[in-house]
Amino acid sequence: MKILTFIAAAATLTTLAAPASAQFAKREDAIKYRQSAMFVMGTHFYGRLGPMAGGKVPFDAKAAAENAAVVAQMAHLPWPAFMPGTDKGGNTKAKPEIWTEQVKFKESADKMIAETVKLDAAAKTGNLDALKTAYAATSDSCKACHDAFQNK
Amino acid sequence: MKILTFIAAAATLTTLAAPASAQFAKREDAIKYRQSAMFVMGTHFYGRLGPMAGGKVPFDAKAAAENAAVVAQMAHLPWPAFMPGTDKGGNTKAKPEIWTEQVKFKESADKMIAETVKLDAAAKTGNLDALKTAYAATSDSCKACHDAFQNK
Repeated sequence: MKILTFIAAAATLTTLAAPASAQFAKREDAIKYRQSAMFVMGTHFYGRLGPMAGGKVPFDAKAAAENAAVVAQMAHLPWPAFMPGTDKGGNTKAKPEIWTEQVKFKESADKMIAETVKLDAAAKTGNLDALKTAYAATSDSCKACHDAFQNK
Repeated sequence: MKILTFIAAAATLTTLAAPASAQFAKREDAIKYRQSAMFVMGTHFYGRLGPMAGGKVPFDAKAAAENAAVVAQMAHLPWPAFMPGTDKGGNTKAKPEIWTEQVKFKESADKMIAETVKLDAAAKTGNLDALKTAYAATSDSCKACHDAFQNK
């Protein structure tokens, strides 16, 4: 497989909220990075907060706050790694619409980030109902973006 | 491959500093989680801070501070995923010593976490020499742990 080198300056998606510049030596690294960030985020969201929000495990306010904080931190990371040219490679399920509908993609990402800020705040209250509401809204924002921009 | 289910209460390594309880439905998920967290951390450390500390790219104080903050956050995550029973599975390179020398493993992890706290502080000063010093110390802590506990 041909390995491409990307220059951060060429990555228009770096305008998305992100704490780090987008520099990846290989496109496979960019794909692995965004998938890794998503997996860590998903573990804390679906794997930790989900069972609490869904009543499957007892509500633990401290654990909920810790997990929501991680989710809110991780939510900023994946976006610079959706650089031009990373629509193929690795085992990406990224749809081409990520690059052809960048305004909509950025709006979807920003929506998710905003929901995780509310989730973090809700979890800090120690109120299970607040967590449930924020969890549902965050989950909806994940699903909406996956439906639009991720192949099954 | 046989899929094992782990109970968080059985995971003695959860005594390591970590913001989340260790609950993984499958050992492959635990392995993927710790590898994902390490890859994200490594991208920001070796991929972003490394070239600045090594003089390969111009020093950008704001970017350095952002990346060091991510490293310091990520440094807490991998440890609960080294649960008993996750020495095999996935494509783990974990050595058995992680589980037979838990005190030493925990000390190594704690050392790395402590170095990333200093790294974060150093990066916030905006002083390149401070960053270089903290980068080298953090890198040494990564290498020491990998040499002792990770197969090549």
